[in-house]
Parts: sequence; structure tokens; C-alpha cells
Amino acid sequence: ISCVLQDGEVFEKAGVNVSVVFGLLSEEAARQMRSRGKSLKAKDGKLPFCAMGVSSVIHPKNPHVPTMHFNYRYFEIEEADGTKQWWFGGGTDLTPTYLNEEDAVHFHKTLKEACDKHDLKLYPKYKKWCDDYFYIKHRGERRGIGGIFFDDVDSPSKEEVFQFVKSCAKAVVPCYVPIVKRHCQDSFTPEEKLWQQLRRGRYVEFNLVYDRGTKFGLLTPGSRIESILMSLPLTARWEYMHTPPESSKEAEILEVLRNPKDWVH
Amino acid sequence: ISCVLQDGEVFEKAGVNVSVVFGLLSEEAARQMRSRGKSLKAKDGKLPFCAMGVSSVIHPKNPHVPTMHFNYRYFEIEEADGTKQWWFGGGTDLTPTYLNEEDAVHFHKTLKEACDKHDLKLYPKYKKWCDDYFYIKHRGERRGIGGIFFDDVDSPSKEEVFQFVKSCAKAVVPCYVPIVKRHCQDSFTPEEKLWQQLRRGRYVEFNLVYDRGTKFGLLTPGSRIESILMSLPLTARWEYMHTPPESSKEAEILEVLRNPKDWVH
Repeated sequence: ISCVLQDGEVFEKAGVNVSVVFGLLSEEAARQMRSRGKSLKAKDGKLPFCAMGVSSVIHPKNPHVPTMHFNYRYFEIEEADGTKQWWFGGGTDLTPTYLNEEDAVHFHKTLKEACDKHDLKLYPKYKKWCDDYFYIKHRGERRGIGGIFFDDVDSPSKEEVFQFVKSCAKAVVPCYVPIVKRHCQDSFTPEEKLWQQLRRGRYVEFNLVYDRGTKFGLLTPGSRIESILMSLPLTARWEYMHTPPESSKEAEILEVLRNPKDWVH
Repeated sequence: ISCVLQDGEVFEKAGVNVSVVFGLLSEEAARQMRSRGKSLKAKDGKLPFCAMGVSSVIHPKNPHVPTMHFNYRYFEIEEADGTKQWWFGGGTDLTPTYLNEEDAVHFHKTLKEACDKHDLKLYPKYKKWCDDYFYIKHRGERRGIGGIFFDDVDSPSKEEVFQFVKSCAKAVVPCYVPIVKRHCQDSFTPEEKLWQQLRRGRYVEFNLVYDRGTKFGLLTPGSRIESILMSLPLTARWEYMHTPPESSKEAEILEVLRNPKDWVH
């Protein structure tokens, strides 16, 4: 089920996907689904699976309000001998057009608090995983200033991981909504809007070239293309050889996208 | 060498790349370069190669003027025993926002004439190859109304293939310029401009997800990203679930992108 808001007052494009799918996977497809590529024993080459998740991308109009994305998902696969493999994945990340340190710290701090309730090791590990995952290799830049990202998590126990994922999901609103409220009335110039459009171009590049979920979706016959590509911004721009001047606000965010910072300790 | 025009009077973005590269290829990279995947014998796992080509993409402002792309290239690889493998590749194709049958026929007829001078079998073969290559699988649409496309051509002889490629390259201007002249003063509505922007979104999808040249470039360390991504339009748009009304001009072009037509016989 997809629900999309387009051309709103505050949001240029915002969508939520809730999906529950089940069926049979080929051994090859199952292998691709697990990022660590653990082998699964199939019966007649087919594995019954079930997957469910919620994901959302919000692209605001105002260049001073960052784009936010989150996704939390659960997978279950049944092997030939009847044993069930299960795992959770997901994350929340922020993509600002301009850097606002206060916002960045608030966003990461809220995520860290959600993680710390469960295990102090989680935030640093998943913060780094997020910076590594959202890397646009051909640009040498991350898509945004990160957040948390994890996949293939199946320990310590299903109940404990579920409680952790619930904490993350509950943190989405307190992470993001205060930032939207703080900046949605900010004034902005045409030049700032243009820089936002160029950054939206990078968002498209990441999603179409690197994002595992998008690539998997595009290659899956019968998948719902409009739901998969819901994550793309309403508009984007590509200029040849656009380089912001040194020590401009545009150069400031680029620096952080090239060299991720630790926002909370 | 790249040369790009941006935000011009007639053209929103237009670029030309001329490139001459040589060096050593791994056996794996060499295999990927030949579309039919012929095996090459390397000396110490490395193959000296040389490649040269010219390519261009022109995205006009006016939605009644189509986007045009062409690329002609030559490759040479030296095997361990000193034998040289060589081949030509390339093509010219048109991506209109709205269908104009007269333009489509003119474009294909001019290409057919260039091909027919060399061998009557070439146009039908390369026309089909073009329709197959520029297929956006997840949309079930071609990027445009095609033209010609070929790769890995190394017969009957180097001189004869070179003469053929020269004829194709010389046909670019007579293929396209009359169409630009005919429509660059056409009036257009904001709705027509919007449809153009949605079609530009599809252009981005093809280039980032499927185009072999773009993917190869993005994955090659040290390649010049700005030259590779020069082919992207200045601006593009993605709307959720945009479906043009039946028997509209928008539905007319979609029909042709879904079911390619023969424009000349």
C-alpha cells in the first residue's frame, strides 16, 4: 500500500509504503537478499519466504528543511528442513541541502538515545554502516549526513531485535518533525532552491545506481514500479561541472558529505 | 575533451565528448567491453587497448523539439600473440516528448539512406538493435523512437566498416537539424513543458540504470564523471502514478514507446 503527497505546502513529495509480501524465492534471489550472503538450503530450489516493512521518503519544498528517509523491515525464510531464518533491517537518515549543525546533532542524538536503550554498541556501529551504505562512489560523496542503517540483524533474540526496531521506528517523528517545524517558514533565495535541485540530482543518482532496495525492485518481475520509484524527488537538476565557491554554504555541506562527522559522542 | 552548452536559447543542455584513451585492460574488463563476450588471450592478465569515440546528447528547451543522441566509437585490443582485435560501435537515436510522424519518418529515412549505401541489411538490423538496446525494462517503454545502434562490428573489413561509420556520422546533422529548425519556434503550454520534464525523468532512469556506457564509466576508477553524466538533462521530474488520459498526445507517444513502429520500408 502506497500513499503519496505531491506538491503540498511544506512537502514537495512525501510517500509511505507499507508492504507485506510472501511467496517462493529462488536460491539465487534468497542469497541476494541477505547482505552477508549466508547459504540457505532449498527444497526443489525454492524457498518459502515472507517479508514486511514500512518505508518513507519526504522531500520538502524549502531548501532549509532536509529530506528524510526511513525504512524498517522483517524477513522470514523457511529452509528445506523446516527451520526458519529471520532477520530485521532498516534505518533512518537525513539529507540536508545546507548544513545546520544544531539539526544534525538533534537528529543523531535522538537516534542514539533510541539505540542506547538496547545496547551502547548499536549506535556507533549502525551510524558507520549508514555512512558506508549511502556512499555515491562515483562522486566520492554520501547522499546525506547519515543516521543509522542495519541489515541482517538476527541476534540476540527475535523479541529483543523487535523491541530495538520499534524504538528506532518510534524515534522517526521526534528526529524529524522538530527540524521541519523549525525551518519550514525560513525564507530562501532562488540560488538556494537551485542548489537543492542539484542535490536532488545526487539523490536520484544514489537511488538508481546504488540503492539495493531500488535495484532489487527494478529487477523483480511484477514489482510495483511506482511504489519503488516513489522515493525519487519531484524535480531534480544536473549542471555540467557545478562547483560551489570555497567556504560557501554549499561547500560546507559538501565537505561533510565527503568526510562524515561524528555528531554525538 | 568535453564541451557543454547550458541554458541556451534553443538548447537546455547540449554536450559533445571526444575521447581517446589507451592503456591496459584486465581480461575481465576486456570481456565486458565486447558485447558478444568473445574471449581474449592476455599476456600476464593484461591487454593493451586503445579506444576513441565521439558522442553527443542534445536536450532542447522546447518540448516540440526532440532530444537527440549519437555516439560513434572504435576499439582496438592487442592479444598476447600480438594479433589485434578491433571493432566499431555506435548509433544515433531520437527521443521526442510528443510524436511527430513527419519528423520520425525524416529521421529514420535519413539514417536508412546512410546505411543503404553500404548494405541493405544494415538499417533493419541496427534499427531493431536500437529498439532493443534503449529499452527501460521496468517501465516497459523505450527511451525514444529509436534510430540505429550497433556494437562489435568487425566485418567485412576495417576500411569498409569505417566508411559505413563515417556515413552514419555524416548523417547526424541532416537527421536532426531540420527537425530543430522546424520546431524551435513552436509555441507550447506549461502542460507540454511538464510532460517533457516527466519524459526527461525516464531519460535519467535509462541512462543511470541500463546504459552500458554510463555504468561502465561510473564503475571505472579515475573516469571523468562530469563527462559521463553530461548526457543527463538539465532538469527532470518524477510524479507518482502519472498516467496520461486515453487518446491524448501524451498517450500517443507512449504507445509508440511501448510498441516500436517501422518508420520506413
